[in-house]
Parts: sequence; C-alpha cells; structure tokens
Amino acid sequence: MKSALGFLVAAKRCEIHGLEQLEITSGLVKGVSELVHMLQKERGVSNVYLASAGRRFAAQRLERVEASVAAEAAARERFLQLDTDSGRMAGGVRLFSRIAYVLHGLDALPALRSRVAGRTLGVEEATRSFTELIAGLMAVVFEAADIAADPAVSRALVALFNFMQGKELAGQERAAGAAGFAAGHFEATEQQRLTHLIDAQDRCFQIFVEFADPTLRTIWRNAHTSPAIAEVERMRRIACAASTAPVAAEASERWFECTTSRIDAMRQVEDCATNALLHLCEAKLLEARSDLHDHKRFLDALSALGGQSAAPLAVFFDKSATSAPTPEGDATGLVEADGLSPKLGRSVLDLMQLQSQRLQDMSDELNTARAALNERKLVERAKGLLMSRRGLSEDEAYKLLRQTAMDQHRRLVDVAEATLSLAEFLKPD
Amino acid sequence: MKSALGFLVAAKRCEIHGLEQLEITSGLVKGVSELVHMLQKERGVSNVYLASAGRRFAAQRLERVEASVAAEAAARERFLQLDTDSGRMAGGVRLFSRIAYVLHGLDALPALRSRVAGRTLGVEEATRSFTELIAGLMAVVFEAADIAADPAVSRALVALFNFMQGKELAGQERAAGAAGFAAGHFEATEQQRLTHLIDAQDRCFQIFVEFADPTLRTIWRNAHTSPAIAEVERMRRIACAASTAPVAAEASERWFECTTSRIDAMRQVEDCATNALLHLCEAKLLEARSDLHDHKRFLDALSALGGQSAAPLAVFFDKSATSAPTPEGDATGLVEADGLSPKLGRSVLDLMQLQSQRLQDMSDELNTARAALNERKLVERAKGLLMSRRGLSEDEAYKLLRQTAMDQHRRLVDVAEATLSLAEFLKPD
Repeated sequence: MKSALGFLVAAKRCEIHGLEQLEITSGLVKGVSELVHMLQKERGVSNVYLASAGRRFAAQRLERVEASVAAEAAARERFLQLDTDSGRMAGGVRLFSRIAYVLHGLDALPALRSRVAGRTLGVEEATRSFTELIAGLMAVVFEAADIAADPAVSRALVALFNFMQGKELAGQERAAGAAGFAAGHFEATEQQRLTHLIDAQDRCFQIFVEFADPTLRTIWRNAHTSPAIAEVERMRRIACAASTAPVAAEASERWFECTTSRIDAMRQVEDCATNALLHLCEAKLLEARSDLHDHKRFLDALSALGGQSAAPLAVFFDKSATSAPTPEGDATGLVEADGLSPKLGRSVLDLMQLQSQRLQDMSDELNTARAALNERKLVERAKGLLMSRRGLSEDEAYKLLRQTAMDQHRRLVDVAEATLSLAEFLKPD
Repeated sequence: MKSALGFLVAAKRCEIHGLEQLEITSGLVKGVSELVHMLQKERGVSNVYLASAGRRFAAQRLERVEASVAAEAAARERFLQLDTDSGRMAGGVRLFSRIAYVLHGLDALPALRSRVAGRTLGVEEATRSFTELIAGLMAVVFEAADIAADPAVSRALVALFNFMQGKELAGQERAAGAAGFAAGHFEATEQQRLTHLIDAQDRCFQIFVEFADPTLRTIWRNAHTSPAIAEVERMRRIACAASTAPVAAEASERWFECTTSRIDAMRQVEDCATNALLHLCEAKLLEARSDLHDHKRFLDALSALGGQSAAPLAVFFDKSATSAPTPEGDATGLVEADGLSPKLGRSVLDLMQLQSQRLQDMSDELNTARAALNERKLVERAKGLLMSRRGLSEDEAYKLLRQTAMDQHRRLVDVAEATLSLAEFLKPD
C-alpha cells in the first residue's frame, strides 16, 4: 500500500476524513446559529423588560429564556460530539479555545438572567453581556469556516458567517433604534452609530452575496423585498434625519416590529443556508468516497499485474508520449481495456497530474475564501486599534479607514494592514 | 472534561499532537534534503560522464549512484513512518499527493540510470529528468512547511525551503556554467540563463536570511566568505562578460570545483538547519507538554472545589474587576494560594484571554511565514503563465514582471497576482 498509488489513496482518505469532520462542524455551526438567534431574541425582550422597569415583556422574557436554554442544551450537545480526546481534530487548537470561551460565558448566563429578573443591572450592561457572548459564538463559526479545506464548503461557510454577522448587526441596530425612538429623539452620536451599523450590515451582506450559491442568493433577494423592509428603510430615514423634531413615542413599537420581522426573515434565509451547508458536505463526501473506491480498484488492478508494474513507471521521465485526457473517475478503464504497460504508466501519471491540477485549483479557491475572512478580521482589528489609541468611535474609525483608502486609491484591507503595521506610531497623543 | 477548561485542555492536546506530527515531517524533510543533495551530485557526475562520452567520472558516477540509492532508501523509510492509514494527518491530502508523485519518479530512477550508463540519452534530457525529480522532492518540503501550525517551526521550515531552493538553483548554475566553459564560450541566451539563476538564488537566500534564526544566519554568513565564493564570483564575471573572447577549456574544471565546494558549504548550512529544526520541534513539544500538565492540575484543583466552581464563572460578564497579570504556566498558583471564588473565576478568564491573545499572535506570525511561501508560488506561476502564453524564456518572464513592478511602484507579488487574474487576456497572439 505504500506505493505511489498507495499514497494517492491515503491522500483521498485524508480528504474524506476532512469532509467527515466538516460535516460535524457544519452541524455545530447550525446549532450555534440557532443559539445565537435565541440569544438575540432574549437580548431584545430583556432590554424592553429592563427599560420599562419590568412592566413590559415579563412573560415574553420567560418564554425567551426557556427557548434559549433549549437551544443552549442542543448546542452543548454538538460541542460534546467533537473529537476532543484524540487531539487530532484539524484546527482543534483554535476551535476548542473559542468553544472554551463560549462555555465559560454560557456557564455565567444563569447569574446574568437573575440580575435581569431582579433588575439589578442597566439596559446597556445587559446588552453588552449578551452581545459579548454572541460575539464569542460568532468566533466559533469563524474558526469552523477557517478550518474548511474544501473550497465549496469553505465558500458556503464564509457566506454563512457573513450572513450571521450581518444579522447580528441588524439586531444591534434594532436595539439602538428602539432606544432612540423610545427616548423621542436621536443624538448625533446615536445617529452615527445607526449609520455605522447599517453600513457594516451592507458590507456583510455583500460578501454573503459574493460567496453564497445562486439558490441562496435568490432566497435572500426575495426575503429582501418584503413590506417590512420598506418600513425599516422609512424609519431609518426618520431616525437619521438632520431634523431635531421629536419622533412619536409609539414609533418605538413600530420600529421594534418591523426590524423584528426583517430579522425573522433573515433567520429563514440563515436556516436555508445551514441546511444547504449540511447537504453540500454530504454530497462532497459521497463524491470523495466514490473516488476512493475507483482509486482502490485501479490499485488492485495494478497489483494484479504484479512484476509488470515496475517497468511502465519509467514513462515518468518520458513526457513526450501523447496521452488522451483521462477523467479521474474513469482511470480503471485503462487497466480493464488493455494491459499495455506504457499506457498504464501514462495513466498513473495522468492521475497524478490531474490530482496536482486539482490541488492547485482548490488551493486558489480556498485562498480566495479565506482572504475574505481575513480581510474582515484585519479591518476589525485596525478599527479597534484606532478606537483604543486615538479615542475614536467605531464609526469614526471605520470612516477614517475608508476615507484614507479612497484618497489613496487603495483597498480598504491594505489600509487596515498598513494601520496595524504602524501600531507603534499610533500611541495616544 | 467537557467544561470550558476541558476544552482548553483539548486545545492544548491538539497543539501537542500537531507538534508531534511536525517532528515527524521535520525528520522527513531532513531525509528529503539528504536525498536531494545526493541526486544533485549524481546529476552533476552523470552530466560530465555523458558529455565526455563516458570517458570521465565513470567510477565516480557508480559511487554517486550508490550514495543516492542509500539516501533514497532512508527517505522511503521516512515516508513509511507517516500515518497514511487513519486519514487523519493534517495537510495529508497535499503532502501525500506530492509524495505519490515523488515515489512514482523514484520508481523510474533505475531505468533512467540504465540509459545514462548506456549513454542512450543526451546531457539535457538527463539533467531535465533529475531536475524534475528534485523539483518533486522540493514540493514535498513546501507542503511540510505549509502544514506547520507553529509559527517558530513554520519560520524555520520557510527558511529551510528557501535555502534548499537556492542550493538547487546553485546546482543548476553549476551545470549551465560547466557546459559553457566546456564549449569555450557563452551564447547570449546562456548568459541570460546564468544571470537568471544567480538572481533567483539571491532572492531565495534573502528570504532564508529573513526567516532563519540568528545562529543559522551567522553560520551562513561565515560559509559565504570562503575563498571558493570569491572564485565563483570571478568566474561568473568571465562567463557573463560581454566580450566574445573564448574562455580556456580547462576553466570548466575550475568552475566545477569552485561551484562544488560552494555547494558543499551550503550542504553544511543545510545540515545545521535541518538539525536545528528537529531540536526546535523537541523544545516546542516539551513546552506544550508542560503547559498541558499545568492545565490539568488547574482543572483538577477546580474539580476539587466541586459545586463552588459554577458561581465564580459569573465574572465572565464582569470585566471591571481588576486582576493581576497571570503567567499562563503559573495558573495553578491561584488555586493553591487561596480558594477565593471570584479570584479563581478571574484566573480562568485570564487564562482564556491569554490563550486568545496567543492565538492571535500565532496567527499573525503564521500568516507572515505562509505569505512568503505563497508569494514565491505566485511569482513562479505568473512566470510560467507568461512563458507558456507569450513564449517568453524564464528569464524574460521574470524581468517583465520585475520591470512592471518597478514602473508601477508595486510589489512583485501584486504584479504576479494581477498577471494570474488576467490569464484570459494573455492568450497567445
């Protein structure tokens, strides 16, 4: 088995194992996306409950807590399915570290909920706590996307991650808008924050559209034409208008309703995306297993030829011989059709060259998908650096990066990279 | 064990397993570098043997063949040590595919040698065959470098890969120069090829110096000041001079000698580099195992506290509490010193934040090392594209890329990337 072809079979076996792991992490991503959705809803009702001094949403909050607890149990079940004992999970170092952080946060949820119930913490602190936990869960999805070694699955995960991120920003927009409408007016900084959340959502959904498959794109476009979306846009305009006229207090409820139905529509798209991801993994696995089967038949046929098999391999150095293109799955045909040695040797070489080309293509596609993940991370980190070192708001930091990129005709990610490399120059004044 | 800390332990276990694999692949890289060196020597004497119509180096060639065969057996032994059965080797898909290709080539070596012995093939074809096999072996080293998930090991492998590549180009320069000196003069295209090989070597050694540790850099600088180097430079000048004056025929032997002693000096540096790599893996493993031990003690101490352990975790959401910096290795101290719950909770959080920071730093360093690998690959591919689509020589293609980068004030790798993205525009005229 340790012949050249034996190693090709071993490579295929690694591919299959990688896909099996991806199937498990994709299931985990599905569980995490459900939990995130429930926590987003719980965050929403907890806010209203706290802001109304416990007069509103008391019963709804308990319902939401129950739903969150169920989703948490399901997600924990997914975590337990991971192979934590062998130390052989690809990307396990990062994924498990993120999960550890999340579990730590989930362990602290009951205490957080008691404080919400007893109203011993403010709206902002409650929001921040839920948001932080959700960010931890998003980091788990990020690592799952980064582990994926199959380009198609990687693309699907990059699309899903960005969609989830966009949806989370939509949830933050809902909270920020609800607070402003309830207060009856928006301060300039609140308007800036809203604008920033809207821009950031747009970027996420752009990347989603870029990496999602056509079916998902269509589902997303259809979800985007509902009447609720138009209402959200109308109220966004009111919130961000320069006018200082007070907004009607009941607008708060309308805002909460239309943004909620927008987010619920997103949840349906997200659901389609996670299911499509699981199906994709299954299809890829079937394909790889069938390839392995073909490889093995080819190998068996080769062994059956016995001593003959050494000579034809000499064609390795004789590239001048012409050869018909050989579809990889059909490689066995060459053995069954005739035992002609040089032809057999060539077909082994063809198999290798096909594999080499395939690896190159996969590597290119993977790099593209991962670049999209990393660019996001770089921009976030550059923003964070500007915020902490120059005391800018998130919105101002992003605008500064974007303006610099436009002025210098450079890509946003290049400016972000340059910013990070100049961290030392950015000491607080 | 499936608590937050349990997952941290699992992450550490993955790190250890990854390092164990790296130790094996580093041993493999050592074996491959020895085999490459032997094949380079065999290529050299085979050339002289063929060029002299079998009159020179007949005995030396047989010695070199014997040495190559021994190195091949040792390398095959390394391949056998890889975990090919479980399908769980990280990066196995690519590594095993490259090894399959190499084994295919090694199987064909005896036939190649018979043709050399019987002088039924030309110098060029023999050179090309050995060079192709060596390129396949270099691809194995490349994949090993790309798999490495530890930044320090990754840097060491990137340095080693570039060094080996530089040494291989030095071997090609030796062959090209020997042919020219033997013929008594250099054609313009031969001079271009020499210049290209010299430039390409320089780039490889620059990257080596950038990524090698200080000790290796010093060893390399010292090796670079030998008298043989000065002689190589002098003869390079003669070979590349514009003058059409014929060069003395005996210069061929002088050239072969001084370039050979330069390459032998390189081999010693390479030997130090592979040994340093193995030691680095060992040291990293020791460190990670000691961390795991500490993590486990911490976890045991936490379990011993029993029911108490749930409450302190609530500090997850309470970042305001101050906390002294906790060196990761010393985390157990907090449990032994006092059982104070909030402090314990904080120390868990500190551990996670340290881990998170560490992952971020590792990821940045890894990206830098991998970027160096990928940039090389991109430039090579852009060059190949220009060669096949525009009928340029390797040297012309490289010059075109470099000139474009200089004219547009862009990095070479950006021009290479742009070239590849415009592949469709580059159809043959």
